[in-house]
Amino acid sequence: MTENLTIKNNDSRHELRSLVNSQLRLLLEQNNLQGAKSLLVPVQPVDIAEAIGDLPEAMQLMAFRLLNKTEAIDVYENLDSDIQQSLIAEFKRQEVLDIVDKMSPDDRVRLFDELPAELVSRILAQLSPEERRATNLLLGYGENTAGRIMTPEYISLPAHLTLGETLERLRTQATVSELIYYVYVTDESKRLKGVISLRDVVINEPHQTLEEVMQSDVVYATTEIDQEKVAKLIQRYDFLAIPVVDRESRLVGIVTVDDVIDILEQEATEDIYALGAVQSDGDNYFDTNLFVVARRRVSWLLVLLLTNTFTGSIIGAQEDILSEVTVLAAFIPLLIDSGGNVGTQSSTVVIRGLSTDELKDLGVGKVVLREAIAGTILGLGLGLITIVWAYLLPQSDKNITVAITVGLSLMAISVLASVAGSFLPFVFKFFKLDPALMSGPFITTAVDVLGVLIYFNIARSMLGF
Amino acid sequence: MTENLTIKNNDSRHELRSLVNSQLRLLLEQNNLQGAKSLLVPVQPVDIAEAIGDLPEAMQLMAFRLLNKTEAIDVYENLDSDIQQSLIAEFKRQEVLDIVDKMSPDDRVRLFDELPAELVSRILAQLSPEERRATNLLLGYGENTAGRIMTPEYISLPAHLTLGETLERLRTQATVSELIYYVYVTDESKRLKGVISLRDVVINEPHQTLEEVMQSDVVYATTEIDQEKVAKLIQRYDFLAIPVVDRESRLVGIVTVDDVIDILEQEATEDIYALGAVQSDGDNYFDTNLFVVARRRVSWLLVLLLTNTFTGSIIGAQEDILSEVTVLAAFIPLLIDSGGNVGTQSSTVVIRGLSTDELKDLGVGKVVLREAIAGTILGLGLGLITIVWAYLLPQSDKNITVAITVGLSLMAISVLASVAGSFLPFVFKFFKLDPALMSGPFITTAVDVLGVLIYFNIARSMLGF
Repeated sequence: MTENLTIKNNDSRHELRSLVNSQLRLLLEQNNLQGAKSLLVPVQPVDIAEAIGDLPEAMQLMAFRLLNKTEAIDVYENLDSDIQQSLIAEFKRQEVLDIVDKMSPDDRVRLFDELPAELVSRILAQLSPEERRATNLLLGYGENTAGRIMTPEYISLPAHLTLGETLERLRTQATVSELIYYVYVTDESKRLKGVISLRDVVINEPHQTLEEVMQSDVVYATTEIDQEKVAKLIQRYDFLAIPVVDRESRLVGIVTVDDVIDILEQEATEDIYALGAVQSDGDNYFDTNLFVVARRRVSWLLVLLLTNTFTGSIIGAQEDILSEVTVLAAFIPLLIDSGGNVGTQSSTVVIRGLSTDELKDLGVGKVVLREAIAGTILGLGLGLITIVWAYLLPQSDKNITVAITVGLSLMAISVLASVAGSFLPFVFKFFKLDPALMSGPFITTAVDVLGVLIYFNIARSMLGF
Repeated sequence: MTENLTIKNNDSRHELRSLVNSQLRLLLEQNNLQGAKSLLVPVQPVDIAEAIGDLPEAMQLMAFRLLNKTEAIDVYENLDSDIQQSLIAEFKRQEVLDIVDKMSPDDRVRLFDELPAELVSRILAQLSPEERRATNLLLGYGENTAGRIMTPEYISLPAHLTLGETLERLRTQATVSELIYYVYVTDESKRLKGVISLRDVVINEPHQTLEEVMQSDVVYATTEIDQEKVAKLIQRYDFLAIPVVDRESRLVGIVTVDDVIDILEQEATEDIYALGAVQSDGDNYFDTNLFVVARRRVSWLLVLLLTNTFTGSIIGAQEDILSEVTVLAAFIPLLIDSGGNVGTQSSTVVIRGLSTDELKDLGVGKVVLREAIAGTILGLGLGLITIVWAYLLPQSDKNITVAITVGLSLMAISVLASVAGSFLPFVFKFFKLDPALMSGPFITTAVDVLGVLIYFNIARSMLGF
């Protein structure tokens, strides 16, 4: 068994995980606890957490109790929050002390955020005073701030220590902290004076002092800034962790790169959902109640009803021309689809550009102008193709006037949609509204209403109505 | 000046950057090279790179030459690729040796990927034999593979060394490698045997051997796997770096977490662009030629023409009913917009779920069923609202039959769009096509064509045509 478990890459790794998951279940069903225990020995904590998550609920606690104390903490931190919840509700007092008390404070706070308030206070009461203090400190900061997501487990030392002494200190202190990529240098009132990477501690001469080798130009975050900004700082400077200071510039915690990856993924998901017209609140969509799902999706659709009150009344007012040239109705979907599409293209690149650094110093004017030109090129090309296409379609009865009307409208709509699609995200950003969420409905409204208006006006003048 | 430069957080950091940028330009214009040089001393390399990028092109080389050798390498690695290119074209032979030869091989390869072939071979010829070999090795792997993005700068040591000896070795070897989060343990034929974090080297007893403390259960990537999979492995296991092995299981490089963050951002951008119907190739959209932009956006729009050939001919065939009940045309935009919107909502969550781990083990059946139910709830709600809304609109002349037709159609379209939107991404994934890119056009086609067909069929039977 153990032989096989050393095959660890990519797809074979995936197969291996499935194998562990099914084996674990089999062994537990046979009540072979010793076998299950040895199966899990060489497996990574995150993979064990997945295997436990795949078990029927009745077996999860049993499987979890097979783990030794150190491993149990790592595995628990990696469980899905619903499984964390169901386990914690059944934990004995000793398990709370062995596991929840030993979790990183940031992971513990993330867990508490999901739990019912009375369970949180019961668990808090069972924690050691030190861990309770650490947890309450983090819980005191607003959601999604640096203070809430940081961990107070870091190494800080005074500037006068030599690197040799530093290594000695690390040997005794490091068990407290999982994360020693950096040693932070602080003064007696805990103010941040400098930083030195563990690498630099190791490679420099042992008799040098921290002061001599530290970097005093420290990039840091303050407790109240948004987690997304913290993530961007770590991303920009390629750090493994960033120190967090309070209002008095005292070091109070660090945010680590592994959390930042998760934050960036979560922010990208929120952007994608917003662009796809789905509201999100950071929960897993696929774990969410279907009525909640419907509610989160309905608001955008109601906006469409409003939009279509205008579009519909414009079309409704064309009874004279429509009853004679009914084929005009056949091209409405094309104009609506194309306008929506061109507008979405422009807004997508602008919205993504605003949330990454790609847009940089290009001003609103330049971006909108670029999009307007791109829209014109697109519109000219598409318009000409459409004239030929519409002329050849059976339903247009080779009516060249209708074909030209459709082509000209498409050109105008393409320019209009590009301008609206690139300009509106800036407007929403200026008013501190989320461009990803707001742009869609407004672009659709602008493009539908104006597009249909343009179309029927061109048709009227071309067809002499 | 230096006093002020220690304010380093968030927004004040941003102001500081602008200040450095404008000061640098001023000093260079006054030809005050000494002043410019001291201005940049306390600034982080990535910020210096940005400041140089903001200068007029004529000043960039001048500013770059103010930097000392070590700093110049860091700054150069952080420059935008167009500025890297224009600088490298002007580098003297000595500068190539001082900078390009000293870059990390992975950064160098990323640079070479952007340069014209003849410049690459000229520069390659000027590199030291060792660096040339390292570069050629990476260039030999396919684009976007682990082999192409890895760096061959890592620390590998034999298992019998004690931790004390390891620290000694690091002190002499570490200058070679910027990145020593982990020490990899290899045998005489370079096969990967284990891994130990620098933390564990430091905190354990110096007389212990690597073999005693190393983790032999190593998660690794192979050279030919896709960079996105490498990123997912680092993300899953919260690593700072992952070892890369060749077909003979020999350690050949590592991929580090800072590169992974950039890969994940790039992949998210590609997904967002694809969902927004814009093709991307990893370039910065806003630096791309407008005709290329138009070409990348046109393919989706041409698909719409094809779609609308069907939709248009369905509507074209309704001359009899449309010429009498022209108001039916007024509701086409609502049905098209709502169907598109519901379909996009479903496909967005499924596509994102497929590319993150959220969907997990939910099968196709369960997901589509969930979406179908959500679509039904949505459809019922929206349909009922729409009946009232359509009845009250002036253009419907209080025609309750038309209002009910629109409402019923919307219900049917909502279910249809949810099913198509959730099912099609799985189909494309099964056929190894990118769901983000392919789903949009097909969902629009299905929803438009079937939606219009449903609408006019309901209208015909309700209105007795």
